[in-house]
Amino acid sequence: MLNRPKTKTNVDIYGQQYSIIGTESTSHVRVVASIVDEKMREISSKNPSLDINKLAVLTAVNIVHEYIKLKEDYEKLEKQISEKD
Amino acid sequence: MLNRPKTKTNVDIYGQQYSIIGTESTSHVRVVASIVDEKMREISSKNPSLDINKLAVLTAVNIVHEYIKLKEDYEKLEKQISEKD
Repeated sequence: MLNRPKTKTNVDIYGQQYSIIGTESTSHVRVVASIVDEKMREISSKNPSLDINKLAVLTAVNIVHEYIKLKEDYEKLEKQISEKD
Repeated sequence: MLNRPKTKTNVDIYGQQYSIIGTESTSHVRVVASIVDEKMREISSKNPSLDINKLAVLTAVNIVHEYIKLKEDYEKLEKQISEKD
């Protein structure tokens, strides 16, 4: 494993400031933050009465749902490759 | 596209109740909710001073990060398939 230096990136998500510390590049962290911000705004526009806490949880629910779908597609592709061999 | 009936699933995430309405099965919604709940508890145990709102946002950040990594792996696999053809 690479021993990459830690970076600290300040981002704004849904009007709040976060300092994200990790080994990922600043540009990667900014992309991730902008996806979360965008998703929160999208869900909020459809459910304007949601408080920020529920909104953030439902955003996480939404993203996990998409993650699972992608994971299923990934497994199908893996199967396709192993059948070709 | 299939015109699937809407389901309403009540789930508990990090001690709060949510009614999730959608075309996914109740069991799928429960799996998704339990992943979010687990992730929130994991992040909270490492950062006990976080309020629930920031915790939920950081959970979403974490999941988007994992989504992007999986997406990159998916694209590598797709490339591998197209090179085999």
